[in-house]
This record gives sequence, structure tokens and C-alpha cells, in this order.
Amino acid sequence: MTGATDFHEPFDINDDTLREECGVFGILGHEDASALTALGLHALQHRGQEAAGIVTFDNEQFRAERHLGLVGDHFSDAETIGRLTGRAAIGHVRYSTTGETILRNVQPLFAELEGGGIAICHNGNFTNALTLRQQLIRDGAICQSTSDSEVVLQLVARSREQKIVDRFVEAITQMEGAYALVALTSKKLIGARDPLGIRPLVLGDLNGAPILASETCALDIIGAKFIRDVENGEVIVCTSTGIQSFFPFGKCPARPDIFEYVYFSRPDSIVGGRSVYDVRRDMGRELARESHVDADVIVPVPDSGVPAAIGYSQESGIPFELGIIRNHYVGRTFIEPTQQIRALGVKMKHSANRSQIEGKRVVLVDDSLVRGTTSVKIVQMIRDAGAKEVHFRLASPPIKHSDYYGIDTPVREKLLAAKYGLEEMCNYIGADSLAFLSVDGIYRAAGYDGRDNENPQFTDHCFTGDYPTPLTDLSEDQDFVSAPRLVEVG
Amino acid sequence: MTGATDFHEPFDINDDTLREECGVFGILGHEDASALTALGLHALQHRGQEAAGIVTFDNEQFRAERHLGLVGDHFSDAETIGRLTGRAAIGHVRYSTTGETILRNVQPLFAELEGGGIAICHNGNFTNALTLRQQLIRDGAICQSTSDSEVVLQLVARSREQKIVDRFVEAITQMEGAYALVALTSKKLIGARDPLGIRPLVLGDLNGAPILASETCALDIIGAKFIRDVENGEVIVCTSTGIQSFFPFGKCPARPDIFEYVYFSRPDSIVGGRSVYDVRRDMGRELARESHVDADVIVPVPDSGVPAAIGYSQESGIPFELGIIRNHYVGRTFIEPTQQIRALGVKMKHSANRSQIEGKRVVLVDDSLVRGTTSVKIVQMIRDAGAKEVHFRLASPPIKHSDYYGIDTPVREKLLAAKYGLEEMCNYIGADSLAFLSVDGIYRAAGYDGRDNENPQFTDHCFTGDYPTPLTDLSEDQDFVSAPRLVEVG
Amino acid sequence: MTGATDFHEPFDINDDTLREECGVFGILGHEDASALTALGLHALQHRGQEAAGIVTFDNEQFRAERHLGLVGDHFSDAETIGRLTGRAAIGHVRYSTTGETILRNVQPLFAELEGGGIAICHNGNFTNALTLRQQLIRDGAICQSTSDSEVVLQLVARSREQKIVDRFVEAITQMEGAYALVALTSKKLIGARDPLGIRPLVLGDLNGAPILASETCALDIIGAKFIRDVENGEVIVCTSTGIQSFFPFGKCPARPDIFEYVYFSRPDSIVGGRSVYDVRRDMGRELARESHVDADVIVPVPDSGVPAAIGYSQESGIPFELGIIRNHYVGRTFIEPTQQIRALGVKMKHSANRSQIEGKRVVLVDDSLVRGTTSVKIVQMIRDAGAKEVHFRLASPPIKHSDYYGIDTPVREKLLAAKYGLEEMCNYIGADSLAFLSVDGIYRAAGYDGRDNENPQFTDHCFTGDYPTPLTDLSEDQDFVSAPRLVEVG
Amino acid sequence: MTGATDFHEPFDINDDTLREECGVFGILGHEDASALTALGLHALQHRGQEAAGIVTFDNEQFRAERHLGLVGDHFSDAETIGRLTGRAAIGHVRYSTTGETILRNVQPLFAELEGGGIAICHNGNFTNALTLRQQLIRDGAICQSTSDSEVVLQLVARSREQKIVDRFVEAITQMEGAYALVALTSKKLIGARDPLGIRPLVLGDLNGAPILASETCALDIIGAKFIRDVENGEVIVCTSTGIQSFFPFGKCPARPDIFEYVYFSRPDSIVGGRSVYDVRRDMGRELARESHVDADVIVPVPDSGVPAAIGYSQESGIPFELGIIRNHYVGRTFIEPTQQIRALGVKMKHSANRSQIEGKRVVLVDDSLVRGTTSVKIVQMIRDAGAKEVHFRLASPPIKHSDYYGIDTPVREKLLAAKYGLEEMCNYIGADSLAFLSVDGIYRAAGYDGRDNENPQFTDHCFTGDYPTPLTDLSEDQDFVSAPRLVEVG
Repeated sequence: MTGATDFHEPFDINDDTLREECGVFGILGHEDASALTALGLHALQHRGQEAAGIVTFDNEQFRAERHLGLVGDHFSDAETIGRLTGRAAIGHVRYSTTGETILRNVQPLFAELEGGGIAICHNGNFTNALTLRQQLIRDGAICQSTSDSEVVLQLVARSREQKIVDRFVEAITQMEGAYALVALTSKKLIGARDPLGIRPLVLGDLNGAPILASETCALDIIGAKFIRDVENGEVIVCTSTGIQSFFPFGKCPARPDIFEYVYFSRPDSIVGGRSVYDVRRDMGRELARESHVDADVIVPVPDSGVPAAIGYSQESGIPFELGIIRNHYVGRTFIEPTQQIRALGVKMKHSANRSQIEGKRVVLVDDSLVRGTTSVKIVQMIRDAGAKEVHFRLASPPIKHSDYYGIDTPVREKLLAAKYGLEEMCNYIGADSLAFLSVDGIYRAAGYDGRDNENPQFTDHCFTGDYPTPLTDLSEDQDFVSAPRLVEVG
Repeated sequence: MTGATDFHEPFDINDDTLREECGVFGILGHEDASALTALGLHALQHRGQEAAGIVTFDNEQFRAERHLGLVGDHFSDAETIGRLTGRAAIGHVRYSTTGETILRNVQPLFAELEGGGIAICHNGNFTNALTLRQQLIRDGAICQSTSDSEVVLQLVARSREQKIVDRFVEAITQMEGAYALVALTSKKLIGARDPLGIRPLVLGDLNGAPILASETCALDIIGAKFIRDVENGEVIVCTSTGIQSFFPFGKCPARPDIFEYVYFSRPDSIVGGRSVYDVRRDMGRELARESHVDADVIVPVPDSGVPAAIGYSQESGIPFELGIIRNHYVGRTFIEPTQQIRALGVKMKHSANRSQIEGKRVVLVDDSLVRGTTSVKIVQMIRDAGAKEVHFRLASPPIKHSDYYGIDTPVREKLLAAKYGLEEMCNYIGADSLAFLSVDGIYRAAGYDGRDNENPQFTDHCFTGDYPTPLTDLSEDQDFVSAPRLVEVG
Repeated sequence: MTGATDFHEPFDINDDTLREECGVFGILGHEDASALTALGLHALQHRGQEAAGIVTFDNEQFRAERHLGLVGDHFSDAETIGRLTGRAAIGHVRYSTTGETILRNVQPLFAELEGGGIAICHNGNFTNALTLRQQLIRDGAICQSTSDSEVVLQLVARSREQKIVDRFVEAITQMEGAYALVALTSKKLIGARDPLGIRPLVLGDLNGAPILASETCALDIIGAKFIRDVENGEVIVCTSTGIQSFFPFGKCPARPDIFEYVYFSRPDSIVGGRSVYDVRRDMGRELARESHVDADVIVPVPDSGVPAAIGYSQESGIPFELGIIRNHYVGRTFIEPTQQIRALGVKMKHSANRSQIEGKRVVLVDDSLVRGTTSVKIVQMIRDAGAKEVHFRLASPPIKHSDYYGIDTPVREKLLAAKYGLEEMCNYIGADSLAFLSVDGIYRAAGYDGRDNENPQFTDHCFTGDYPTPLTDLSEDQDFVSAPRLVEVG
Repeated sequence: MTGATDFHEPFDINDDTLREECGVFGILGHEDASALTALGLHALQHRGQEAAGIVTFDNEQFRAERHLGLVGDHFSDAETIGRLTGRAAIGHVRYSTTGETILRNVQPLFAELEGGGIAICHNGNFTNALTLRQQLIRDGAICQSTSDSEVVLQLVARSREQKIVDRFVEAITQMEGAYALVALTSKKLIGARDPLGIRPLVLGDLNGAPILASETCALDIIGAKFIRDVENGEVIVCTSTGIQSFFPFGKCPARPDIFEYVYFSRPDSIVGGRSVYDVRRDMGRELARESHVDADVIVPVPDSGVPAAIGYSQESGIPFELGIIRNHYVGRTFIEPTQQIRALGVKMKHSANRSQIEGKRVVLVDDSLVRGTTSVKIVQMIRDAGAKEVHFRLASPPIKHSDYYGIDTPVREKLLAAKYGLEEMCNYIGADSLAFLSVDGIYRAAGYDGRDNENPQFTDHCFTGDYPTPLTDLSEDQDFVSAPRLVEVG
């Protein structure tokens, strides 16, 4: 399966979810605040490609631009950056899983408060957002978006606290789930990470200007210094006079999402003190140890499988070759393909490099397996190119459970590993053999001896079903089939 | 002066107002609800050219389309109409006077309520909207638009009443100013007109489907029957089983805005039982009686001065000729003219028809005089074409006071008649003589013997300074320089 | 019938014609050459709305911009004008009658010659263009456009003459039909009018810079002086040192197209020494004399019928009123109407002004009758508004013959007057009476005692069938079903 | 240096050249001709990203679509493909090196001939095109494009031969330089390769339909079978009844361009019987043998350096790691960057993967070095990431001479290796050591023992200065500063 394909492109999952994958960025006290935010978001583009937004504050007004599409397409010209005046800015890239990819859902969201205003952006998913939203509407709130993130904003607006930080803390203590939040007021840049630290958030510095970002690669692109991870459960408040930390939930052990290593973060980012590339390559090494097979060539499924394939090759000694060539011009192409083009399927993006395949025993390495529909085509393509054997290796355990913390996964029934056993999966995909990395193997690649089942070091429910927070909106008592909604059809 | 020019095109007035000119339309129980609404809005396009929106209800969901631009450009294709499914629809055309011509201000506005949803659109202006808005924000409301119309929606959402009509009535009884409102819920089409009936609203019928619209021309275009004016202070509730009327303010004498006759309504509409064309032509007749001048030709300033010029010619016996030719292709052209093009000014739109002007004594007839900047150019153009004399005649009294009820007027200091006396104005414009219709003259053209100063039959503050409602937001106690706002810059 | 409607909007005529209506403009020796050309074309926009183009020469290169759409939409911004550097410019507005409204057909056309280059634009139609084109292709020419105008360019390129004016004259002496040509070389601005002067062309002057334009209104908009008409059969060559005239065909009597007065030219233009507005209004006066009817009101079909209706009212003494109101926002709206919207037809553009119609005997006045399809709807609309009687009056004779000189007319079978007699037409349209202006009547309105049948003063074949030039391409010997052509489909 | 960057993106070279890099495709006798052509062009997209065009023949007309931009953006929707009816099609992707990226230069070009029509597209460059063009204009031809390819079309049109193939052959025998041509007439699909076979062209088959394409990857994407290379100097004519070959230049030894292996062709293509990937990886192996250095890690410059880096790692035993991460969202982003963004330069596209660099001796491998500007930045980025040593290795010889056969190279003065010796280049780039593959080394990688200096097996002038054809347009006798040209400015 190609994580890249299945995760990064729209597919039909069950509608009416609010969850999303996202990247956040914020900076305070720099004259190029909006340009630097645009660059930071560009580096975080892999976390969300459907929309992007930036809000700045220029000591008089908040200024917003929100666009569907890529950062580079909408925030790279001098005119746009010139409109976003001010020395403070926050921004967001978004990948929505629902049909509601509309402008009013694009973050940052903003609320005018009595004494000022606040803009908020959010990576993650609140697992009690629908429940709270229903209560807010009952109390007379008007929700303009269908984003779960708006609930935080409504709670901030309704708080009776005087100080904005107190209002913000009052709001997030009502929220369940996973979040990395970045907020901007007329004086403060605020960051917050959920009590378990499921979604990542780092603190950086550029010539004295504090920066908050989802990943370190957003610091690297602008030449900023990495200071530290924002801790799990930490609220961090940056002002012109310094940085303060609060732990409204007390201190508790972190459980960051292991999926950031498997697929989500960029390979050059440092997440939780570990190089993502190193972990990913070491997954390949562990995989080679766990499920060796005699073969002639190690072929990565591009591009997501490359680091693990390199590790697999290094551990096994079998040569690494580019047996599949990726067409670089697919980005936004063939959006509305004809049936003829559709039928040719995977070839729009990948083609077999026959000289490396023909007559050979091939080990295909990918990062993860979701629905398996692409894997079927990849295996077939390799066979068509004349492979003698095709062995499929996945550098992560079987995904058997949906995510509710901001990673876009299909409903459980569509997860191949939730439906089938190993042999059935192998048959379905058409490989000669199939193997996954074990749960302990992935923990080893991340630097542990294995999973501590008493106090797991990571959030890993997709593999284990062990959800670390309540899933209130999913409880059977809830009934959200309430009122007719507004659909922006055009 | 050319009302057409000064009113229908953006000019710099003082910022930060919320007022707007608009047209509204609604229909319940017709399978072509959205197409008919698009047509109705097209007929009302003269009431607002900057944006248009339609919301339908299809028994499951509300469906919305909102666009900057003309109805014909965004709501005339089969695909758009096809997306707006449902047998009930309301729509809005808008002309904003501020820089905030942004999508989130385009109506209808929508609120999801506990038991349903409500979409609202509004023609007019609330004179206490800023005051109420400040209170709402203090109470934790998040205002997504900067439109005064959103205040009604917030009040409906916060009402503790159970029934939607009661919530709606509770909301409007808190509002001051002028309004014709049309609202749509999952079961009802609701209309409301302010206690004085300042802004117009009519009830029509198409094969049993009730229709609400700003003017009768919106009924004519779809072949619907005109039933009656919605009365001043009336709340009218249409459901599938019939129509009910409420008078939450009790019954009181009406004072519709006389400016609908002067300039605003379409000539083929029937407003308050009178043909707008007849009243407008009769203004020309009254004007000819009041301020006769010996001349060779009556020339209208196109197109707004045509009916009055016809009346003036009929009464005076002086021939009516098209002495000014209008370029029909100006609509949306020369948006960003070069300085060279700008300098040629009025000629982009109008040109003198020299054969009717040269060597003649010309009476120029226009509907009204606002700032006078265009009139200066028109008079000069007529002189350049060789006129022997130029007499300027205005078919309405001098405009000395700003409007706060939904008609877009400049601040008082920019109104020519607020600054200057008759002779000064005549000099400024460069005419040989200048005359306005008297206040009593305009009442006579509208069918009365004159203005009843005890109980004026019309809202006529632009001429008289007699504002018929409180202007709360303008009171000196108010201070709206509160919090920083969000500006959507892109 | 509404000339405006039938002429100015696309309708299905027989395909594969090359003819077009157009406007041309040229100026030499002015620093604002391109801006002035844009303004001149804007004033000529009524002659062609589908495309516009400008070519300048800046002493180094020719510079071209060509766009589908209106002048004001594509040539009004400072950036575009700034790109069109140079002190000499020519431009063109075009209305094509075929499906081939593609960029490569948009004029001016250009040819690089050995010693320089030449740009040409053309109003009119060559009646032997297809014949010549076939010969050129046989000789190895590659025709990039499907425009008949390219033939002139090919002939200029192939001429063995040394001097550019000689090459130009050699080319036009091979052409038959109607033309007003404007050409630009690196040193010269050249104009030419066909031997009969069928299509108009005038010479103007702006501070010493010579100007060529289709109509005087293009001089008025830029404040230029009208010098004289270019004569029939005249080639006029403007250089920095003066203006020269040539008459390669010798001197012969002119026969300008009478249709410029009926419908085509702008009312404020002076064509052949006569005010178009005066002639058009006098057609109404003649019509009133020829076919009086007792009635209560004279109603013009807007806007093309207005001048004649004014004349009719003046002559008959019956009041002129705006009984039909035109919706000003139709310009480019409802391009792709739904079937529902289409069915409502004429109401998109016009509505009856009931107060002027109901219970009255109405004389409807229009300029001309082509296919009659719109007239049927107009009459029905007036009846629906309650008219007691509807009398239809046309201010020109019946159109019984197609045009081949650059005016877009349907094939003969679709011309109502070619199919039916007067009574049948009256029945078809649904009027109580129908009358046309006589052929002599239209000559009287144009200042003659009547038509001189020996030497007709005008080209009037649409009324009389008297075509003044050979129609070579139409001769039965010709067979143009030759080679497959290229169709630019996207 | 990153060949990818320097070759695939616009940079300022000397203007007024006509040369271009391109890809061509043609198919005859398949019902999905246009869809298959679109797919083939998509696979050839790396050969030209600025424009694409397709012409089909549907037994009645030729149908054309030409667009600036990517194939996937303009030819992937059902509507476009539906307009391109017919069972025969040719297409082109284009990368122009001049400012003239305008629609009229986009191929296929078309000429209507007496008995039919012909569409042509071209990959390569004619070295006598300007000379011939000047002669054609002198003879009365009108050149609509500024493309050198139009000269062929003009020669075909002017040929006095009767048969289209004879006309085509007569035309190409007048041309010098490099070309792979594909042409379509109403009956024939024609291909031609220059006498030396400098540019590639292959013959394929899909269920009996012959296909011509620049590379085999265009066959693979549609599942077509590779038949053979079109030979050097071969004219191949496909009709419904079969395929015929002509050798109008006689048989002579081939000298294909070695640069197709170095950089230009896609790695999965088979060019001249060799896998491009194999040759490219073996260049890395040869390079490792020729210029070994002790190091800790082999890092490719993505993506062009990857195959050579794999080969280098395999031969040297030093581990291959992704030390530079490429941002996948750069495709068309940051087109108009602000100065701030520009200053951050290379980081928009690449970032150092610090965990693989810090404290290590790094061998950077790229395919070729052109101007060196990007290499400077890459080396600096690697140093900034903490590399102990940086050794730069190029898998091809120094480029010392410009190309005139269709590959876009800067003028000689801008080629780093034309200006500097090895040590100077190393200093300029800032590396600890620098080495290029030798000329014999690259021939070894391509399967020979070395270069046969008597009869070189490849066209390799960029490395050796040995141009295999006359360069007529460059001769000092020529003077092309002739006539003013037309510049399409908008």
C-alpha cells in the first residue's frame, strides 16, 4: 500500500466528520512576520494541501487571508504579503476529509471580543466537539463554520474570565482529544498542546522572535533555531517581554502519536528528539530483521517507502534500486480524468523501471497499508514488468483501527487489516509474500526495547485499538441528527 | 447631477458604516424556487450590484450560494440552479457602501438553531445595530460578518422563546430603523416591514406559491400576480397551509420613503399603489410648472432623467430630444482606467449629440443632485457642443441631509445642497439657471395636495431633516472605537 | 422587430461565412497612441463586441494585444496600455457571425515583410475572398486565419512591388466588395475605402496627429477634430510629413450603405455629412406621415426604436412614453440560461410599463424587422399588459435580401419580409396593424426627394436586391468544399 | 550542481533564439486517439512544461487544442478529449527558451494545403532555420509564428511536388540540424529523424495502431508495445494499410545525443537499446572508480542525482542516504516570490536532513554542472548542517560548449566549465574536492570501451566541442537584424 497515495489524496470516507490533518505556525515580534509564516506553512504543506490561511496583527487591526489551495499559489507574491502587515502572525494549512472544503472553514478562525480579538488555528481533533457544539447552539451561539475548532473559539468568547489567557485555558480544559493550538491576540502569541501531547508542537526562535510550529522543518526553512518541544499539557504564552508556561492539567506522562514517525512528519524534522528519517529508516532495518526474504533487489514504493527501503537494503545487503519511477508532474494534474485515463490508473503517477524488475525477485517496501487498493495495482505493475517474485513489506504494523485525533483514516470497514488476516491480505494484494513490522519492532525503531503495555510510550491505537482519551462524540447516547445544516453549494 | 451615476457607482464616502441598499426576494412551495428567485433578483438588480446570494431548503438541508457580482453572472446557469434544490428559497442583492465587500457579508445570513435553522436577508438599515452588536459581543457572541443584519440573527439565536416566529418577533422588536426582512426556516417563509414601512415589500402569488419581494417588477418578470403591499409594521408568515399576519407594533400610520419614487425603484414598479414612472414623469410636469424657462429643447440626463424630461416636455411643449447619448458598453468597463482615460471622464459614458445641441437653448433634466461632480462635467460637455444656454432642472428638492435607512448617501459635508445656496450651486455647476422641484411639488407629483407637516405622508429627511426614528448609533454617548477588528484583506 | 436584439446578439445563421461587422481606428504621431486607440475603439464598440485588438509601432517593434471580449475589459488598464508602446497605433473591434470566434482571427492581422512589417484591420466584406484564398493556397501560402481580411495581407506579402503603398494598392485592386481598411507600417498609417464607399471611414486630427476611424463618435470621445470623410475609392497615406491621397480606381459616384443610418452607426455620429440621429428621427416623422394611425401613446422598442419614436410622436402629436422598460444589467448576463429562464424569454431584457399600456391604443416603433422572432414576444408582452390595440411601425423598408458587405444578416429564408407579405407578417407578429417606411421615404429622411433608380444614391440591396458589386464567391462555378480545415476546438 | 534546476526552469539566456526542448507523440487508427496522445504527452512532460498541443483528424476536419501549461491541467478532462474527435492524433510538449512563450508558437503547427492539410510537431533545432525563414519572407510567405519549426511547414506548402510525402521529404532535405518530426495528414502519420539521429524517436504499437513517440515511457503509460527505434535519417509513413520506410539521405552511422542519458530522458525509458536508469547509475559507478574519496555517506542531489548516487554507493560501499529532502510542493509555487522569500533561495525546494549530515564526510552526487549557481547554495546548505567535509561529484564531464540541437543551454560565457579550471570551479562551489566523470568514462557507462575519436558514437559537443552538423545560422555572413518583428505583448 502506498501511504502517500492513500493519505494525501481525497478519497471517499464516511461523511460528516469534522476531523482534519493540519499544520500550524506562529511568530511574534518580527517585521517579516507574514512572509516568514508563509514560508513556515510552505514547509508544513505536507500536513495539509487543501487550504491555507494567515492572520496578522498590525497594532490596529487583524488582517486575514484565507485561500483554498497551496501556500505557494496564494501566499508567495509580494502583494499578498504586503497586505498582511504587522509584526505578529499565525497561519494554518489544512486537509479536510469531508466535502466541506469551503472558505468559511479555513483557519485561522477569528472572534472579536469586547476588549480585543483572538485568532486561533488548530491541528488535531476534539473528540467531544459535536457534543459541545450542540450545547452552544442550544445556548444561542451561531456557529459559522462546521469545523470542530470553532468550539474552542466559542468557549473563549463566552468565558466570563477577564484575562484572555484565563479565557483560553477555561476553554481548552473543556475540550477532549488531540490538539496543537496556536492563537494570536493583540498582545500575545499562545500555544497549547493536549495533555498527552498527541499532536506535535515545537518552540523556535529567530533573532529573538519566538516561533511556534508543528514541525522543526518549518524552523529550518527560515533559518530559525529550534529551542524545545512544547510539552504535553503545556500552555505557552509569548509576549514582547518574554515567554511563560502554564500546566493547567498538571504534569503527566506524554503519549505522542507514533504515526508522526510512520508517515506524517517530514523526514528532516526532529520529533520528540528523534530524527524522523532515522526512525523511518530503522523501521526498514527492523523489518529486514523480522521478515527476511531472499531477493535480488529492494524497491521502494515512492516516495513514502524510500527511507525504510534504504534501511531494509542496508540491513539485508540486497541492492536498493529505483524500480518504480514517479512522474513528477502529477501534483494537481488529471483532476477530472476521462474514464479512459482513469482505467490506466496507477500509471499516471508511477511506472515500472523494467530494467530493474525483469526476471528478478523483488522486495517492495512501503510505509503502511491502509485500504490496499493502490498496493494491488503496484504489485500488478511490478508483475507486468516481469518480476519473478514480488514480496511486499510494510514498515509499520497492520492498521486495524480508525483515528479520531486528526489523522484522516477511512472507516474501520475499509481498513484492509481490520477485515482480513495476513494470508487473505497477501492474496488480495497479489504478492508472493507479505509482512508487517511488529508493534514491538516499531517501538524499537523509535529507540525503546519495545512497547510498555502498562504505560505505552506512544499513542498507537491505529495498531492496538488503545485509545488514550474518551471518545465522547462517538458514545451511543449522542444523537447528532438534529437540525438541518447549511451547505454552501457554490 | 446624475443620480444614476452618483448613486449606482462606488464613491468615497466616510468608511465604517454598515448601511446598504438592497433587494430581497422569497418564495415558498414552488419546484423552481431557486430559478424564480434568481430571476426575481435579476429584476431587482438595480437595488444592489455588488453581490447576490440565494438560500434554499430542500427538506433536508439549507443550501447556499453567495457571490460577489451580478445575478446574471453567477445564478443564470443550469448547474448553479441545479445545486440549489428545494421548493423554498430566499435571495438578496446587495450594494455595500464600505470597503467590506467581502463574501462573509453577502446575504442571506444563516444560523443553525437547536430545532432547525434560519436564513435571513435584509433591505434597509438598523440605526441601533452597532449599539446592540457591542452588547452581544460583551455577552459572548461571535459576529462573523460586519453587516448590521447579523444582529437580528444573533438576537433570534439567543431568544429563549420556543417558536421560531416568536423568536423572530422578539428580535425585531429590539431593532430600530428601516427594514424589509425576508426569512426562511425549514417550514416557513417570513416577511417583515418596519413600523413606518420605510423600505418597500410586496406580496405576490405564482400558482399558489406565496412570494415576497422588494418591488413588483420582481413579480412581473416571473409572471406572478401582485397581491398587496406588506403593511408597515406587519410580520407575515407563509406556510404550506396559508398566510398569517401579525402586527407586533400595533397599527400606526405609514411613512414610506419618498426616495423610492425619486430614484430608487424601477419605473415599471408599483410602489404604494402608484406607478413609479407616473410619479417620476409628473415630477417633471410639476417642475415645468414651477420653474419654466424659454428654451428650444428638453434633454434628459440619461437614463435617470428621462421620465421627468418627458413630463417636462409634455407640460412645457418644448421638444424632447436625446441630446446626450449613453455608451451602452460601460457596464463594467474601464474599471482600472489609465490617467489618460480618467481625464476624459464623462465621455466614457456619455457623449453630446451635437446636432441637437448646437446653437440651442437647452433644458437639462435630471432626477436629483447629490455631490454635483458629474453635473459639472455634463454641463461643460453640453457647452462644448455649442449650446447657447444651459438650464439645469432637478425633478426633486435639494438633498441636504444624509440617509441612515439603507440608501447610500455621502456624509453631509459632501452634499452640494448642504453646503451651498441655489446661486452658488448654479455657479458651481456652470449652468445659466438652476432649479429644483419644491417639497410640496414632489408630494403633488405623488398624488397629495402637498406635505402634511403635522403627519408627513412620506419619510423625506434627505430633503427636510425630519428623521422619523431614533438614530441611536449616532448619539454622542456611543463609543464604537472599541476592539481591533478583523479585515479580510484578500 | 428589435434590430438591437436581432443584430447585436449571436443567432444561428448559416455557417461558413467569413463576413463580419467591425470598427477600425488608427492614429499616427501621438505619444498616447495606444490609449487613444483604446478609447476610439470603446466609442466604436457597438460595431463589434466579440473581440478587439491593437497593434502599435514603437520604432523598433510592432506590439500586439488581441482579446476576445470588450475593449473596456481588456484595454482599459494602465498595464496593458503601457505594454503597447509607440506613437502609432491601429485597432479593431470585431463581431463575427460564425463559430470561429477565435484569437487567431482577431485583427489587426500582421505580416513580417522583407523590409519591414504591416498590420491591417478591416471593416466590410470581400466578395471574392474565398476565390482568391483558394488560389493563394494553391500557390503555397499558409493561411493562419479563416478571416477574409487575411487575403489582403497575403496579396501584399506576395506583391513584387518595391514600395509598401504600391504593394497595398496592388492588393486592394484585386479585391471586390466593401471595405474600410486601416493599415500600419513602420512609417505610414494607410486608409482605404472601397470604390463605392459602402463602408464608412473618416479622417480626423488631434493636435496634428492624423486619425482614421469608422465613425465620428470615435473622434468626439478623444476630443479630436473631424476633418472630412475619406472618399469612396480613396487611398490615404499619412506620414510624419503629411497626408497624400490616391485614387487607384479613378473617381466614381459614391453609394454608401443606407443601413448605417437605419441601425448601425451611433446616433451621435455624422455619416456622409448627416447626423445619424436626425436621419433616424426623421424616418419616424416620414413613417408617421405615411402610415398614421389613431392611438393614445407612442412606445419605442428600446433602445433602437427611440429616435424614430420621438419623430413619430412629434409628427403625429401623440404622446411619447416609455412603455417598455429595459433591464440595464443584461449586457453579458444569462449567458447560459436554464430552460426555465429561457422560457421567460424577452422579460430578461424588457418589461412592460403597465401604467402606460393598460387600456390604451399603442403604437410600437422599432427601426427594422429581421426575423421577427423578438417582435412576436414584444407584441405579446404589450397585449399581456392590457393594451387595447397594438400597432407596429417600422422606420425602414422590409428587409428582403441578405447582406454580403459586412453586415450580419440571416440567410434569406429566415428574413421575415422575404417569406411573407405584409398581412402575413402582421398576423405572424400578432399586431393590429403593421407598416413599414417606404424606400422613397427612407431616402427622403436622408435628405433626397426619393430614390434615383438610375443612379441610386445609396447601397440598399437589403431592401431592393440591387447589389452594387459582383458577388464572385457566390457564383455557381465556385466550389469551396475543398480541403479539410483546422478547427480550433479549445 | 543540479541539472534538474538549471535545465528545467526558466533562466535568462541570450534572447532571440528559436531553439527548444520538446517531446512528440502520434498515433493512427485508434478510437481513443486524443486520450492516448494526452497520456503519452503526460509521460513526456519532463521534455517540456511550458505548453502542449494536440491535433486530431476525424475524417472531416482537423481539430486543434493548444494551451500554455501542463498536459494534465489542460488535456485531462473528458470535455477537452471529447472535442478532439478522430482516430488519428499528434501532440507536442514544449519548453521554449525565449520570451516568446505565446500561443501562436505552440505546436502542432498546421497548414491548409490544396488537397488537404498537414499538422507538424518537432523536437530538436534547425541550425539553418533563420536563413531559410529570411528567404521565405523575401518570397512572400507570411510566418505566423517565430518558431523554427514553421519553416518546415512553409517549405511543405511551397513544394511543387504532388504527393504529400514527397513534399515533406523535399522540405526536410533543405533543413540542417537535429530533429524528430511527427506529422499528420488526412491519411498518414509521418515520422522523421535527422540523418545523425541526434534527437530520439521510437515506433510502438497498440493493438495494431502505430505510435511514434520521443521515448518509450510514452508507450509504457498506455500499455503499448515498443517495436523499434526510428533510425537516423529515416522517414516512416504510417497509413491504414501499413508502414513504409524511406531513407532520403541514404544510410549513415548514427550519432545520438549522449545528453539523453545524462539528464534528459526519463530513467525508465529505453534509449538506443539501453536503459537510461542503468546508464545513469553506471555513470555513478564509473565516477566512483575514477574519483574515489574516503567518506561516511553518499548523498544525491535530488532528484536528478539519485541514480548516479546509488551507483556510486554500490561501487564505493559507502552508505547511500537521503541527506537532502526535496519539498514536493514546489512544482508551480512561488512563481512571484517576494524578495524575502527569494533570499532564502534553495530552501524553498530542498532542505538538509541534518541527522545524515552532521559531523560526517559527505559525497554529494549530481548529474551535471551547468552554471553552478545552485551548486554553491547546495554545498553551503550541507556545510550549514554540520558536514565535516563536502566532496562534490558530477556523473558527467564538464559542459564547456553550448547546444544548438534543441537542448536549452546558456550562452557559453555562463557555463562554469567554459570559464574555469577544475580548481577554480571547486573554489567557486565551495567544496572540499570536486570531480567530473571523464569523457571515456561516460562512454563506458553507455557500453563502449571509450570514445572512438575517429567516429564518435555519440553527439557530445557540449563536452567536446565537436558539433556534428553545420551551424549555418551562426555563420558570420548572416545578418538577421532585418525587419521589425511583431511582439505579442498580452
